[in-house]
Amino acid sequence: MDIVQNPTDIQQCAGERRRSGQTIGLVPTMGALHQGHLSLVAAARAACDFVITTIFVNPKQFGPGEDFEDYPRTMESDLDLCRAAGSDLVFTPAVCDMYVPGSSTTVEVAGITEILEGQSRPTHFDGVTTLVAKLFNMTLPDRAYFGQKDYQQQMIIRRMVSDLNWHVEIINCPTVREPDGLAMSSRNRYLSPVERDQALILNRVLEQADQLAAAGQMSPQEIQTGMAETLRNAEGIEPDYAVVVESESLQPMEKNFGCAVALLAARVGRTRLIDNRILTFAE
Amino acid sequence: MDIVQNPTDIQQCAGERRRSGQTIGLVPTMGALHQGHLSLVAAARAACDFVITTIFVNPKQFGPGEDFEDYPRTMESDLDLCRAAGSDLVFTPAVCDMYVPGSSTTVEVAGITEILEGQSRPTHFDGVTTLVAKLFNMTLPDRAYFGQKDYQQQMIIRRMVSDLNWHVEIINCPTVREPDGLAMSSRNRYLSPVERDQALILNRVLEQADQLAAAGQMSPQEIQTGMAETLRNAEGIEPDYAVVVESESLQPMEKNFGCAVALLAARVGRTRLIDNRILTFAE
Repeated sequence: MDIVQNPTDIQQCAGERRRSGQTIGLVPTMGALHQGHLSLVAAARAACDFVITTIFVNPKQFGPGEDFEDYPRTMESDLDLCRAAGSDLVFTPAVCDMYVPGSSTTVEVAGITEILEGQSRPTHFDGVTTLVAKLFNMTLPDRAYFGQKDYQQQMIIRRMVSDLNWHVEIINCPTVREPDGLAMSSRNRYLSPVERDQALILNRVLEQADQLAAAGQMSPQEIQTGMAETLRNAEGIEPDYAVVVESESLQPMEKNFGCAVALLAARVGRTRLIDNRILTFAE
Repeated sequence: MDIVQNPTDIQQCAGERRRSGQTIGLVPTMGALHQGHLSLVAAARAACDFVITTIFVNPKQFGPGEDFEDYPRTMESDLDLCRAAGSDLVFTPAVCDMYVPGSSTTVEVAGITEILEGQSRPTHFDGVTTLVAKLFNMTLPDRAYFGQKDYQQQMIIRRMVSDLNWHVEIINCPTVREPDGLAMSSRNRYLSPVERDQALILNRVLEQADQLAAAGQMSPQEIQTGMAETLRNAEGIEPDYAVVVESESLQPMEKNFGCAVALLAARVGRTRLIDNRILTFAE
């Protein structure tokens, strides 16, 4: 497995592979890898000739007061995990090489970035889309792999790819969960044992929403109201949002059926967690 | 010469050429082609295996009250000119295919877009960069050709390419002028015979600035002041700006020597024209 730090080198490596006819799979991560990330690498490995995993804690997607400095950095074990999962190359650029002095270009998706996560983290998605644009241009992947856990992010990236005509297929990989249902997240390690237990309510609320949607007795709005109430009453949980929205635009649903997604964000102690579930409403 | 209208088709055409090892040259235009544009096509023809000229009057780079509706559209003669100049393919997309309903992504370069042209045309460069990003992704050119006449635009595109890591070489082609010195522009056809004559002052002012810089007796600031005054006093001219600035950042020069550019914009009657000249200061 190759480890490449320089943007020029990754561009060259990927170019050589592409010219030799290989398909390229890209798995962008911020490191602190867990089974969720590794499922992306595995999916890429199964479908692509050459798998590039990127490990880069992207300062531009952290706001002031967020955990950029403290974000877990576990490069050595990350590299072992990438190797074991079948990555061909890991790209681990330095911040100063990704954002050279004087750089001033931003890729912005309007609308869908301004709601939900965007309300709490107003510059977050501009940081994500700008970085992903750079990674796409550096590697020109045939397919790029994103986890469903960051649902809004994935919808934004799909919008960006479509709007700016990158020739890359965005592959969704299901959220990987702990045995007790908690969605895997690099931030779970911030949780105390008590908080870890309290955090289970997030998945439970989504499971319940799923069952209610399938039962077909409640409207999206009613389910949403119930989710919010359950979270508000849960011990140790400070909910940020809990919604049931149209699955692509993330706008309120106008009808009870069709593709919906339940999305939530909450603080558990000082740790902010997100989770989601696709809902299928009985017609 | 192929004529392609559909973004998916151009992506496929360009992809096939690239995979067969051909180098691709891209010449983005808004049509109403003149010798300036054709010099770009000729430069691409000389250096690339496959030359793509795009003709698209991009609504996003026109502000309210600008001449989007009236912008000259001369497709038939444009196609003849492209053919004669050696273009292999002309891409002539429809607005609705370039900006599909719901599209909401913008590529924004901060700073350098907010001055000079950006002051008079606040949304102009976002429209340019977003379109050029799309064209780059559709065609993945090895080289893209831009005229020096749109100097600020070219600097912005260079910044964007560098910041977002497109693997494309930006080629500058010198401004092509009428025999009497007027820079060629699709908007020159708006000028009445009297205005056409009055417009000559733009090039004369730049020529004078060039001579003064070479003579080494005046500072950039003094030359700039002289340019502005000459334009203010010229019959039929309503100057917008006239500056001598650092040639890459377009910021005021801190020293008298090095790379400078004189840039100006003015209305001649109702027609807004721009022009520029690289200055070399005697040390």
